[in-house]
Amino acid sequence: MAKEITPRSENYSKWYLDIVHKAKLAENAEEVYGCMVIRPNGYGIWERMRDALDAMFKDTGHVNAYFPLFIPKRFLSKEAAHVEGFAKECAVVTHYRLKNDPDGNGVIVDPEAKLAEELIVRPTSETIIWNAYRNWIQSYRDLPILINQWANVVRWEMRTRPFLRTAEFLWQEGHTAHASAEEAMSETRLILDIYARFAEEWMAMPVIKGVKTPNERFAGADETFCIEALMQDGKALQAGTSHFLGQNFAKAFDVYFLNKDNQQEHVWATSWGVSTRLIGGLIMTHSDDDGLVLPPKLAPTQVVIVPIPKPSPDLTEAADRIATQLRAKGIRVSIDNDDQNRPGFKFAEYEMVGIPVRLGLGQRDLATGQIEVARRDTKEKSSVPLDGIGDYIARLLDEIQQNLFDRAKTYRDTHITKADSLAEMEDILENKGGFVHAHWDGTTETELQIKERTKATIRCIPLDWPDEAGQCVLTGKPSERRVLFARAY
Amino acid sequence: MAKEITPRSENYSKWYLDIVHKAKLAENAEEVYGCMVIRPNGYGIWERMRDALDAMFKDTGHVNAYFPLFIPKRFLSKEAAHVEGFAKECAVVTHYRLKNDPDGNGVIVDPEAKLAEELIVRPTSETIIWNAYRNWIQSYRDLPILINQWANVVRWEMRTRPFLRTAEFLWQEGHTAHASAEEAMSETRLILDIYARFAEEWMAMPVIKGVKTPNERFAGADETFCIEALMQDGKALQAGTSHFLGQNFAKAFDVYFLNKDNQQEHVWATSWGVSTRLIGGLIMTHSDDDGLVLPPKLAPTQVVIVPIPKPSPDLTEAADRIATQLRAKGIRVSIDNDDQNRPGFKFAEYEMVGIPVRLGLGQRDLATGQIEVARRDTKEKSSVPLDGIGDYIARLLDEIQQNLFDRAKTYRDTHITKADSLAEMEDILENKGGFVHAHWDGTTETELQIKERTKATIRCIPLDWPDEAGQCVLTGKPSERRVLFARAY
Repeated sequence: MAKEITPRSENYSKWYLDIVHKAKLAENAEEVYGCMVIRPNGYGIWERMRDALDAMFKDTGHVNAYFPLFIPKRFLSKEAAHVEGFAKECAVVTHYRLKNDPDGNGVIVDPEAKLAEELIVRPTSETIIWNAYRNWIQSYRDLPILINQWANVVRWEMRTRPFLRTAEFLWQEGHTAHASAEEAMSETRLILDIYARFAEEWMAMPVIKGVKTPNERFAGADETFCIEALMQDGKALQAGTSHFLGQNFAKAFDVYFLNKDNQQEHVWATSWGVSTRLIGGLIMTHSDDDGLVLPPKLAPTQVVIVPIPKPSPDLTEAADRIATQLRAKGIRVSIDNDDQNRPGFKFAEYEMVGIPVRLGLGQRDLATGQIEVARRDTKEKSSVPLDGIGDYIARLLDEIQQNLFDRAKTYRDTHITKADSLAEMEDILENKGGFVHAHWDGTTETELQIKERTKATIRCIPLDWPDEAGQCVLTGKPSERRVLFARAY
Repeated sequence: MAKEITPRSENYSKWYLDIVHKAKLAENAEEVYGCMVIRPNGYGIWERMRDALDAMFKDTGHVNAYFPLFIPKRFLSKEAAHVEGFAKECAVVTHYRLKNDPDGNGVIVDPEAKLAEELIVRPTSETIIWNAYRNWIQSYRDLPILINQWANVVRWEMRTRPFLRTAEFLWQEGHTAHASAEEAMSETRLILDIYARFAEEWMAMPVIKGVKTPNERFAGADETFCIEALMQDGKALQAGTSHFLGQNFAKAFDVYFLNKDNQQEHVWATSWGVSTRLIGGLIMTHSDDDGLVLPPKLAPTQVVIVPIPKPSPDLTEAADRIATQLRAKGIRVSIDNDDQNRPGFKFAEYEMVGIPVRLGLGQRDLATGQIEVARRDTKEKSSVPLDGIGDYIARLLDEIQQNLFDRAKTYRDTHITKADSLAEMEDILENKGGFVHAHWDGTTETELQIKERTKATIRCIPLDWPDEAGQCVLTGKPSERRVLFARAY
């Protein structure tokens, strides 16, 4: 089975699709353009991501709510920049009833049931939420509002790829309201830190925190912060964004509050989101030519126990005993009870779906009080005493989590390359890949020209990296700091 | 504030809306017909419902997945009965792009971007899921498939009421595939039992398990099982349904499996769901004229500690200490830190939002080592020693949970009334309300006539209730058992 995966070196894009399909993470929805079915193996990862993020949001005072799927068309016209960014490729609901075709050939849309105003399937919820906030906010006492929503959204993308870019996707979108610019900005940064911590501690995916250029900003934001990760093919992935929206949406939707000085003021806003795209990032950060590799913290099953060559009463009983010890340590474990397939087939299968640790248990192991431990990340195998196996595996899972992060970080760090000319930049992008750390004159015009020449965009201006004077790689004009370019998903 | 609620006796329907709005559970989405905004107070209840149900599903071997929001129109024509039931009041997506109005007045639908085939926003997902299952199932070894989905669905209802009936609502929908009718039927019943257990143990809402008449069956089901609850106004509420779908969807979508005898056979199916409608049932089962009453197991906040008359360093410090003790018992507690409003105002507010236990802490209490404990369910207050307060409150929360169930069950049990004539039935429905337990001749014709005369429907044929021969209240024809009629939400 493992042999069926296209090697990364041969065709990276095909390798990615092979993993998605063969690890049964997702598939394209037949006959629903651009949508995907997230299968249990994929959804199990999303559930763990959601639970971990949700706990981090709640620990910082956020609550969840739910707003309508549909947005009246005219709402999308209200915030000028937002229109440009989002009122384009949207699914539009125009009718609310079907009826039997008089010809007897199934159902047709009832032309009588046309909506007076079309409804848009939300591509993001700023407009519908700020329309609601208008009634919720009177004075500074009603602020802050710290609301998050877990929801599906739809953006009619022309080129889709499972998890990375799909017409419908799942995400969380936070929408907060504040009494001052400072407070809204500190919320924006707080969430950025949460995203970075989640990416690194849970996904074992190192990220760079930065700010987007005006050209790459969210439509309607005054400032967009992001976390950027690097995939194994040298392309960058925007993994999460946190937007300081200023008073733009409050102005568009007439949302005022009475401040402490008894004056009416527009409310300050943030919004922020991560999506099922993270699963794509997770796959491309760790997996190999044998299949999916999952960090233990996000693996739905962390350990599988395989009786060798197949289940028998004494092996199964021993496996149950070991499973009980592991579960007592909070480890998610399953026992292979299949008696049809051979161990080699099973091993390949478990490697394919990315179970971090495989325990092989045969009669000889029982006799010697040992068990064979196979790590998915390094493919190393070792014999380990059954005595104290719970502690051993708990430590091993931590070690695997750390190893995955370290490995990804080494790769990422060795793929941030300084370039001092456009030729150098092009050479790095073509031959080495990764981030190019280069000077830029700060104008959108230059940014777009570099993009046209190199297919690389400015991923971000990293936060807290030292400033350094220099000259723009394209125009030679003065620059105060280097920024990070890359080709990106 | 509490005084603003319309009493139940005056206008039950207005009372319900008052609770929904004033406890900040939900509101109608302005300008999005029939949709609601579920506010944090309401969504917090839904989160606890979801987590409890999700754990019960997983304990019985189910996994979650996610299928597309959109269904190609022609899928809805494939299962004949399903068409009648669901292909009617649906939101229809006909276009996938907006563009700027050449007049400069916002955005318009781009007529160029018309879909070749319209997409329906899912009203339920049998069709899209069985279309996917066709590729997942080859042999009996691929069965059973035990998948659940948490999702939003849309049914274009003409008369809506928050939680009880909205165009968009949140729910879970289980869709399982089996190798035999027996196995599918036992799954259907397993889920029915889970729903009943959840309703009674978590919602403290007694339910009757039963089977629907053919007329009330889910469109596409061979048999629909349900749990039926009774609201305080004497109307019934269908709280959950579990359907045995036979081979109907397998036939409609050509889903076969190779059985153990090496023969191709259509797969057997179930589907089952509960929705945010349960929140409506929860409200109408327990709440009173002072506001929401929540069973402790589902209350986002179980205990609030109120310093009296307002926060001061020593009271706040004592409140923190008490909160720590309660949290150590797993109790969800918050401390009131507001120094603007008076205790009376706060008490009414906490009653409105349904916090099960309120602790009032004043200087005298500190001196005597006591605290005032107020129960939301009975409105009783008592002074309790601070020593051992954690255990006391933990027991009290259990007692409140039980009391709410007992109270609701007493009400329900005294509102199941036998009737042996249509006149008797009409009298009960008009003057007493509740379930009417009466004989029916088993025909849809009679069922519909009784509905027309009394506005009551057959809620279910209760499971495991004794059979009893008799005569139909309408036709006098022989009947083998009584069934439960009621007016219903």
